[in-house]
Amino acid sequence: MLLPESIQSLVTALERLPGIGPKSASRLAFYLLRAPEDVAQDLSTALANLKANTAFCSECFNITDAGRERCEVCESQKRDSSLICVVEESLDVLALERTGGFHGKYHVLQGVLSPIEGVGPDDLKIKQLAERVARGGVGEVIIATNPSMEGDATALYLRGQLEPMGVKVTRLARGLPVGGDLEYADQNTLLRALSGRQEMN
Amino acid sequence: MLLPESIQSLVTALERLPGIGPKSASRLAFYLLRAPEDVAQDLSTALANLKANTAFCSECFNITDAGRERCEVCESQKRDSSLICVVEESLDVLALERTGGFHGKYHVLQGVLSPIEGVGPDDLKIKQLAERVARGGVGEVIIATNPSMEGDATALYLRGQLEPMGVKVTRLARGLPVGGDLEYADQNTLLRALSGRQEMN
Repeated sequence: MLLPESIQSLVTALERLPGIGPKSASRLAFYLLRAPEDVAQDLSTALANLKANTAFCSECFNITDAGRERCEVCESQKRDSSLICVVEESLDVLALERTGGFHGKYHVLQGVLSPIEGVGPDDLKIKQLAERVARGGVGEVIIATNPSMEGDATALYLRGQLEPMGVKVTRLARGLPVGGDLEYADQNTLLRALSGRQEMN
Repeated sequence: MLLPESIQSLVTALERLPGIGPKSASRLAFYLLRAPEDVAQDLSTALANLKANTAFCSECFNITDAGRERCEVCESQKRDSSLICVVEESLDVLALERTGGFHGKYHVLQGVLSPIEGVGPDDLKIKQLAERVARGGVGEVIIATNPSMEGDATALYLRGQLEPMGVKVTRLARGLPVGGDLEYADQNTLLRALSGRQEMN
């Protein structure tokens, strides 16, 4: 094609990212070409160092700095170790931390059960979660997998594993999103909001 | 924050790109972390080499490979040198090439006149266009700047410069987009489509 080799290879590399199609890719490439040199350079450096500089916490499997045994949350003395919140991925930890409403520890499964994609219990950090619970000191496990089919299946599986160990297992509440509109809520959400209704106080 | 340094710097670098907000940036960063190593590496390499490996054609100012004096189109013997299509940027050349309907040469202005952003005639490759026309052999200049306020102003300015040199100056047709819906067309487009109506044959 008409594109110089170096731009074409950038466009190709950008197209491999999720949510970036051919048009956005070439628009981004030309933006980077015109932008100050350091925009492309910073991105290039950050990408090159990405994998080398990250590791997983040996306790909760959240992402952390390379060379670190345990992550910030796991090492913190201020966090309640008797409460473990189980999430699918590190981004979910970020979302929960942003709320400022959770003061326990986390456990990152690094995925969800998905027979279609061939993801079974052994592909997730489920055994490691059971081990953490078995070590004792855990009073409650909050399952915060996504409110999707896979997330629900994973939650059910986890309950089956953890409840026999004598730990309380809870799941995040489902219902109308705050600021949402009842009229636009889907059937399932509305059903959940009904069945999960709470007394006003 | 909770993010490891290496991910945070990638998120920051991604956020500087147009159309990528904080949420997309962290989603992309975590995608890159999980993706095969070469996805991030290819992107990193492409970014690092971007500016060093590209140059502008000395004739039409389209982007081309570094070390090349003139671009593919300018060097081609099959292209009609008497017809010059003036566009704002290299991406527009790509769009026109994709149509397969233009066989002349191009001239990339590398921007549009924009008093608000402080872009005047001297900031664009207008003088170089006039020089190309002055060298002779050009019969028609098609102005293909965007159908926007700035694009129209630039087109008017170019006409003022080129017509006195005895060259025919045309502008891309405006009207209803193919496959579009009259009902949803905006007033200005509809007005243009009316005033620019053509006899059927």
